Amino acid sequence: MLIKPNRRDILRLAAMAPAFALPAMARANLGAPAGDNPAHFRFTVGEAKITILSDGFFSMPTSGLGVNADPKEVQALLEQHYLSPTEGYSHTNHMYVELGEAKVLVDVGSGTRWLPTAGRLLANMEAAGINPDEITHVVITHAHPDHIWGLRDEFDEPILSQAEYIIGAAEHAHWMQDDLVNKVAPEEQQFVLGAVNSINAGVEWTMAEDGHEVAPGLRLIATPGHTPGHMNLVVESDGKQVMALGDSMSHAVLNFAQPGWFNGFDSDGEQTVATRKRLLDMAAADRITVLGYHFPFPGVGHVLKAGETYEFLPALWQFSE
Amino acid sequence: MLIKPNRRDILRLAAMAPAFALPAMARANLGAPAGDNPAHFRFTVGEAKITILSDGFFSMPTSGLGVNADPKEVQALLEQHYLSPTEGYSHTNHMYVELGEAKVLVDVGSGTRWLPTAGRLLANMEAAGINPDEITHVVITHAHPDHIWGLRDEFDEPILSQAEYIIGAAEHAHWMQDDLVNKVAPEEQQFVLGAVNSINAGVEWTMAEDGHEVAPGLRLIATPGHTPGHMNLVVESDGKQVMALGDSMSHAVLNFAQPGWFNGFDSDGEQTVATRKRLLDMAAADRITVLGYHFPFPGVGHVLKAGETYEFLPALWQFSE
Repeated sequence: MLIKPNRRDILRLAAMAPAFALPAMARANLGAPAGDNPAHFRFTVGEAKITILSDGFFSMPTSGLGVNADPKEVQALLEQHYLSPTEGYSHTNHMYVELGEAKVLVDVGSGTRWLPTAGRLLANMEAAGINPDEITHVVITHAHPDHIWGLRDEFDEPILSQAEYIIGAAEHAHWMQDDLVNKVAPEEQQFVLGAVNSINAGVEWTMAEDGHEVAPGLRLIATPGHTPGHMNLVVESDGKQVMALGDSMSHAVLNFAQPGWFNGFDSDGEQTVATRKRLLDMAAADRITVLGYHFPFPGVGHVLKAGETYEFLPALWQFSE
Repeated sequence: MLIKPNRRDILRLAAMAPAFALPAMARANLGAPAGDNPAHFRFTVGEAKITILSDGFFSMPTSGLGVNADPKEVQALLEQHYLSPTEGYSHTNHMYVELGEAKVLVDVGSGTRWLPTAGRLLANMEAAGINPDEITHVVITHAHPDHIWGLRDEFDEPILSQAEYIIGAAEHAHWMQDDLVNKVAPEEQQFVLGAVNSINAGVEWTMAEDGHEVAPGLRLIATPGHTPGHMNLVVESDGKQVMALGDSMSHAVLNFAQPGWFNGFDSDGEQTVATRKRLLDMAAADRITVLGYHFPFPGVGHVLKAGETYEFLPALWQFSE
């Protein structure tokens, strides 16, 4: 029997986070990994050098996906695409951009407090030969665990503290509102505490409004819905654009084939859908390269519009000359 | 003005092979690579450990694609998928399978005699930690340059000479027929000589017929069309299957969206199409994992059937637990 989950159910499950590390055989459309696959991917967009860095992966029940749709339809669409109908497999793809003087990282991953299969951003950065001390700006798309909890290291010290930290003013205001922790359901309290503790970890925050210029060629746009103050980074160089979607899109199949579906974690479902359709149309019309944080690694590709629906086209892997 | 190319045109171009290394900016849907991206990818299928190893990449004019279709339609379909309408970008994904006692490599790449951007198989094998001396079997899908020329090293000695070399009996017979080099067009002579010299490099050949068992769980099936004796390797373990397609499919967009189109390099276009449709239906019905030699690295995925056409669904990238 299928039970239509609500946001509270999802958050209750999230509170038992370590239980989510599911058996390898069940969590993807290939067998278990037979060793460690590479966790970074490089390409350029105009003058911008971009490296995608993985923070790892995790699984969540698919009952949290497409919560405004018939669960049977959600499961059928997943299965048709060779994905588990019950276990959602999520990658965590961070964008690191070097453009001019700026070296910008998008989100800091989940660190040591979330799931054992994630929190690998700094290790993968080192493997990619990137010096974390040179990072000039850190942009936080939103304050969910897998995007911000990594801000504090295991000694409660902030990482990358030499960088300018930037967050949407509306995002900051949402999580930092007076006594939020006691206004939410018990299952949501862990999320609120984690966000507040991360924001209060000791870095100074630049509050961004829609259109905020991080550095020349790098701007933030407001993309509310998944969270109230969610923001996306847009990189522009030589007339080409690439956008880090954060969680304004979180599934490379469902969000494209059924852009009207939203998830249990989307704080405002209707607004999430409106923002998504705007971004999909923008990306298709302007042929913008997009990065989905939770899309299959490396999560970079383009948007194909086909009538009322869309398709995510992964970008070609590249080797040097 | 567009000129419908024929097979001879393509081969004439191929004879000028080094000129094909096109400027990086033009050859893919992202910018130039900003460094060296990883060139191997590991996963399992049942008990089989599989590593995809790249031999590199190359570009060919897209005029050789879909030669039985309107060139404008071919170019439009490429452009819609964010691919260059004029320059075809090809990866070269080799399957290496470890199952039971067998360690099987599919094809040996192009070696040092073809294009400067290819011939990297042995280097990438070393980077993946695979000892070439342990390889027990080498399967050759067909005797085109990018699949067999690497058999000879720069001193004309065969590589992996401790392994059992296997080729389709029909493929061997085709290239080794008396005086073939003088029966073909001048532009094809380079291909014939390269095939003959590779086959004669000093290894002993096992001639395979349809259904040949390489080792338990590993069999070859006849897939004629692209060449007369083309064969695919099918791996089966724990009821799961994966198939190395060789060049029975060579494009992850065109061969799926337009399975009736064939290429200038397909020696028998109609047979290529018939073989392809059989394989697409088989892979979709049995949910077989497929590897496209020329698909975007790593080239592993599944076949989605949608009415009369198909879609290639790249498999999820995997990280270890």
